[in-house]
Amino acid sequence: MQSLKDKIIKEGRIVDGKILKVDSFLNHQLDVKLFEEMGREFAKRFEGQGINKIITIETSGIAIATAVAPAFDYCPVVFAKKHQSLNLDAEVYQSSVYSFTKQVSYQIKIAKKYLNEKDRVLIIDDFLANGKAVEALEDIIRQAGATLVGVGIAIEKGFQDGGKLLRNSGIHLESLAIVELLEEDGTIVFKDEQNDL
Amino acid sequence: MQSLKDKIIKEGRIVDGKILKVDSFLNHQLDVKLFEEMGREFAKRFEGQGINKIITIETSGIAIATAVAPAFDYCPVVFAKKHQSLNLDAEVYQSSVYSFTKQVSYQIKIAKKYLNEKDRVLIIDDFLANGKAVEALEDIIRQAGATLVGVGIAIEKGFQDGGKLLRNSGIHLESLAIVELLEEDGTIVFKDEQNDL
Repeated sequence: MQSLKDKIIKEGRIVDGKILKVDSFLNHQLDVKLFEEMGREFAKRFEGQGINKIITIETSGIAIATAVAPAFDYCPVVFAKKHQSLNLDAEVYQSSVYSFTKQVSYQIKIAKKYLNEKDRVLIIDDFLANGKAVEALEDIIRQAGATLVGVGIAIEKGFQDGGKLLRNSGIHLESLAIVELLEEDGTIVFKDEQNDL
Repeated sequence: MQSLKDKIIKEGRIVDGKILKVDSFLNHQLDVKLFEEMGREFAKRFEGQGINKIITIETSGIAIATAVAPAFDYCPVVFAKKHQSLNLDAEVYQSSVYSFTKQVSYQIKIAKKYLNEKDRVLIIDDFLANGKAVEALEDIIRQAGATLVGVGIAIEKGFQDGGKLLRNSGIHLESLAIVELLEEDGTIVFKDEQNDL
């Protein structure tokens, strides 16, 4: 999606040669107008798939999933919880995510009553790197007997394994910007996508 | 706001006689259509105040703040971070929040570049209980030299101190539903508000 790529080029910064910081619009300060545009783009790419639930994971996925919901007829959004919460039921589906950054595993949880076999689910997240978070959400969707229709990502790190792993396993993955390379001089190189033609 | 109260009566549950659970639409599963309606209501209540930034705190405030932004001309939303994050700058405003539930204090942080003296800020959050989170956000807004225009809350717990403290300190606080009493038989009693007439 060209407007997202333009925004990344304009405002993204590369830290330590490998971290792409987009905190000015994606995960600290939020550009809700851009998120809604992303929602309309996802609605086009997943048209006619009968999506009736959007699932994401706290924290950074929540804002995007919220802004995407209107483009999917305001279907319910459910965010998997990473942190302890009084608001969570005892009856949950859960799965484990390994964080390479922090080198620990953590549990993500969704209350059983908010996911069932009638749900046709779109997973939304801000970043895709190694795909571990998506795999854990996929596991939860499987436990619930729901159908995973696809995965919509804002920024895929094309130089990490997640995208390849998910596509090879047959998942319909749509990333609105795929970053192929972060160059030392600060240049950000995107992978060309047919969808942008 | 009558539609929010109706939703609380229909779907809210009282746990242990004191916790109001609204995880079916407010803080686990999310009703984005209702959030947008809340946004329009806040826009009416804070009309003509020149609000150009919405501030909230992770996690539960993020979805509501995101859905409220369109009613404020898609002004930027910034969420204060509670948890460690690679995405956060070294240069931050921070303040301490005491959690009565967990009996610990934690730091909330906003990168300095996303808040400045030109900002006229609306704080948005899902719940108001003792008001400690709002006070910490107010402290950060003061540090940045920005102006706090008001505070918009979905559900205020009228039987706790926060609302009184904030109003007494001169803050323009608008709560869309004020729960006065959680009765043992499960009845939820609201405080009447002039705005609902």
